[in-house]
Amino acid sequence: MMATLIESAKKDKLTSTISKVSKIEGIDSLRLANLIAKGRVVIPKNVLREHISPKAVGECVSTKVNANIGTSREHGNVEEELLKAQTSVLYGADTVMDLSTGKDINSVRRLILKEIDVPIGTVPIYQAASEHASVLDMTEDDMFNAVRLHVKDGVDFVTIHTGVTLRAIDLLRSDGRILNIVSRGGSFLAAWMIHHGNENPFYSEFDYLLEIVKEYDVTLSLGDGMRPGCIADASDRAMFEEVIVLGELVKRSRNAGVQSMVEGPGHVPLNEIEPAVRSIKNICDGAPLYLLGPLITDIAPGYDHITAAIGGAVAGLAGADFLCMTTPSEHLALPNVDDIREGTVVTKIAAHAVDLIKFGQRQKARKLDYEMAHARSNLDWEKQLNMAIDPQRAIQIHSRCKDLDTCSMCGELCSIKIMQEALNKK
Amino acid sequence: MMATLIESAKKDKLTSTISKVSKIEGIDSLRLANLIAKGRVVIPKNVLREHISPKAVGECVSTKVNANIGTSREHGNVEEELLKAQTSVLYGADTVMDLSTGKDINSVRRLILKEIDVPIGTVPIYQAASEHASVLDMTEDDMFNAVRLHVKDGVDFVTIHTGVTLRAIDLLRSDGRILNIVSRGGSFLAAWMIHHGNENPFYSEFDYLLEIVKEYDVTLSLGDGMRPGCIADASDRAMFEEVIVLGELVKRSRNAGVQSMVEGPGHVPLNEIEPAVRSIKNICDGAPLYLLGPLITDIAPGYDHITAAIGGAVAGLAGADFLCMTTPSEHLALPNVDDIREGTVVTKIAAHAVDLIKFGQRQKARKLDYEMAHARSNLDWEKQLNMAIDPQRAIQIHSRCKDLDTCSMCGELCSIKIMQEALNKK
Repeated sequence: MMATLIESAKKDKLTSTISKVSKIEGIDSLRLANLIAKGRVVIPKNVLREHISPKAVGECVSTKVNANIGTSREHGNVEEELLKAQTSVLYGADTVMDLSTGKDINSVRRLILKEIDVPIGTVPIYQAASEHASVLDMTEDDMFNAVRLHVKDGVDFVTIHTGVTLRAIDLLRSDGRILNIVSRGGSFLAAWMIHHGNENPFYSEFDYLLEIVKEYDVTLSLGDGMRPGCIADASDRAMFEEVIVLGELVKRSRNAGVQSMVEGPGHVPLNEIEPAVRSIKNICDGAPLYLLGPLITDIAPGYDHITAAIGGAVAGLAGADFLCMTTPSEHLALPNVDDIREGTVVTKIAAHAVDLIKFGQRQKARKLDYEMAHARSNLDWEKQLNMAIDPQRAIQIHSRCKDLDTCSMCGELCSIKIMQEALNKK
Repeated sequence: MMATLIESAKKDKLTSTISKVSKIEGIDSLRLANLIAKGRVVIPKNVLREHISPKAVGECVSTKVNANIGTSREHGNVEEELLKAQTSVLYGADTVMDLSTGKDINSVRRLILKEIDVPIGTVPIYQAASEHASVLDMTEDDMFNAVRLHVKDGVDFVTIHTGVTLRAIDLLRSDGRILNIVSRGGSFLAAWMIHHGNENPFYSEFDYLLEIVKEYDVTLSLGDGMRPGCIADASDRAMFEEVIVLGELVKRSRNAGVQSMVEGPGHVPLNEIEPAVRSIKNICDGAPLYLLGPLITDIAPGYDHITAAIGGAVAGLAGADFLCMTTPSEHLALPNVDDIREGTVVTKIAAHAVDLIKFGQRQKARKLDYEMAHARSNLDWEKQLNMAIDPQRAIQIHSRCKDLDTCSMCGELCSIKIMQEALNKK
């Protein structure tokens, strides 16, 4: 069996993936190999997907954005999901997760893997659950076989809710949450565990899981099944119990030669984000942290791409590495293509704002802002519009100003113009 | 002459305004009077505007949101500006500033003052400048007379760029900014000062300014004329020099019986927001801090309501009290009614997220989130939609899910449903 990426990195072997990423990120390749060896950077990439654009997640590399697509039982078709994936990549998503639970799970996943050249992630338990009338009817084999099916198809990373343990569920009960578990995969496993009185198979048979993913060098994303689903449920014992378990599993996966990252909360009030992010990073020995939000209030359905972008920026400031986009339809409906575009752009903004202050990325990221500032200073509208994060949107708004060298906000009373004239005179 | 609010508060006199605000904010009236006396809370309210809904800004009271409206020379009419003001208040703006620079400055301001029952602010120097072909032609009397005109018309607070001093302009030159001054009022004054070689009249004649505003108990908003206009210009010496001057003027206005607040940056990278906010609060002895942004990146024109909401939330976390809404058309065009709505809602989200963690407001603010969480837990869609921060938007998105008791995102695989069944069984 070939060495996995982390195994190569441990031997200071500079694989072609490491060389490629080193150039993309502007980071020395030996240093990158060292970060991968320590598990502080992961590059999710199935051995079957030689030609995708590799993406590094973690310390010193740029903050990455994931876009979720996927059908539900009630809605969705293969072509629409492909269009969602293409749209998200066009607007800057670094990875795509297919969260399909509809009839065509296999077709959607395989089409996305074929057509999209960024890392693709899935949540295999969705497939195991979707193939039964009730999630309680899944067998342990169903669960592991779903993982096997996905890694054999070529997915680059899989979310597995390994930290939903019997102890975490006990804590959940005694914490007295309003919303219990809002992670779909987490709830499937918890319901199954409660019903059968069994431990989480992905936890009790974690070595078996490692074997399955290692064969294709697939990265584990250790899911946050216990993530709080509302402000009132944030930062409780159940959440941190899961993190403790994930910390253990990060260590075991690194030792086994499998890359792993950790997923984090959820709904979290503004002042609890930094403590949560730093604690998770510490407990999990610096594993790359993949954030779902955090959403900083519960009362803004229709705007949860924004509540998540605010939380994501604050989390990035505290050390989060990977932001999962949230769309305007979160809590309301399955996102459509427009929602995916809007969610991706807004999450990219948060990620870029983090890169402006991130060790190893700051200089590169700031070049863009410098260039925009100079374009503003020169009143160079063409450049300002073209280098906007979403040129189409910027052009559309600016088109309301006709025949002006300034904009219709200030017109002739443009502060930039006035100051240039004033400072040049004396 | 009647005592001003701060003078009454200093004598522990509980005016009707203090009693009213005490009830609105859920804060003891003597404590509120004490905060007003110290200048840590302001209630902008012209003596002519007895019947407006009073709004308190500062420590322990809820985070407030201002919406800017106003014509430019190139665009705008009185009715449209009124509609913008009404829309912003409908979506939760606590105050409205009229920034008109068009032909109908007087009519817009007077109509807004008549029709809108929240505190109204203006920037009188816009009027002084707009009435001349060049800002250089303004006289010192024009500047003070514009202030007098506005306070006599009834405006509740005025932004005056008192901190744009000759020394600050010297520092600006030596800092070598890309965008110099992006504050319109700041640029008018700086250009005038450079041209005439004179000190800022609002600084050198600050006592005269205090006299004018005190007559109508109008609150001073000490403008941030030196606020950075791009990430590269952030946190420089010119900015902090202005803050030092504002700190002096806060003290002088408190001593004179005039309420004052301080305006803050601008464009600021994520990790410089907390230091800036805390420093400004310290230097200005806890004066209420009114934030314009901060915008956390330069590259997102079309989405600057979001870059500002992110910055505003981070600033609020550090102690900012008052957030000025930014619209999607910032840097591109004069906002239209839709932009105002979108900008207001997004800024309200940031303000609410701050209240969830703000001393004195946390309990009240969290009730809303608890209620939403319970509505989610009960799958009570009607309640979820109606109590959303923008019900219309939430209903529109949810209408894509037909005849479901869950939503089309998860359908029957709803984590909330699954967990309720699982936990109720055993």
